[in-house]
Amino acid sequence: MSTRPAETPEPPYYMVVFASQRTEGDNGYPEAAARMAELVTQQPGFLGADSTRDANGFGITVAYFSDEESIKQWRVHPDHTETRNEGRASWYQHLAVHVGKVERAYRWDR
Amino acid sequence: MSTRPAETPEPPYYMVVFASQRTEGDNGYPEAAARMAELVTQQPGFLGADSTRDANGFGITVAYFSDEESIKQWRVHPDHTETRNEGRASWYQHLAVHVGKVERAYRWDR
Repeated sequence: MSTRPAETPEPPYYMVVFASQRTEGDNGYPEAAARMAELVTQQPGFLGADSTRDANGFGITVAYFSDEESIKQWRVHPDHTETRNEGRASWYQHLAVHVGKVERAYRWDR
Repeated sequence: MSTRPAETPEPPYYMVVFASQRTEGDNGYPEAAARMAELVTQQPGFLGADSTRDANGFGITVAYFSDEESIKQWRVHPDHTETRNEGRASWYQHLAVHVGKVERAYRWDR
């Protein structure tokens, strides 16, 4: 299976980098992650996302948004907030989030 | 094995997101990637990196730098340039790069 990185518009736009080490066991994570990945596509300003996780459970998701207000609206979305609050304590060993404004970007496809 | 995300200073700083789909086969990639991961730690302004790749070869590396000049110096580093030029054609099916200025960040560890 081959994955293509998300298509993004010309900068500027914003990106949220979410790096996390999962705990052992599912604890409902796969279902919740799939539900949130679907729900975020309905968030105005959401541009796309790249996401991957290795066999040891260390993952990085990068979500692209048109502006900061869209990121804020997604952060306070009731379903997202509830899922985050329910799951965070059991799903993650470590997590780090970095929010930045994209100044330049390029891509290459074979 | 548990991985902790990189420690980063208070924003602002910069991040380079590198998302890529690997081609089939090694083609010298693991050795080159390890060499570059070591070399970048000698780049002034390099703050750390998070990196992961799934079983299907889709990976994301996020490298953190103190400023844009450090990113530019790393991009034009002779060994990095040579490795990039030699390897890109055989290692990747798709790649995308996003460079941004980090405005806020947080982390949580169990």
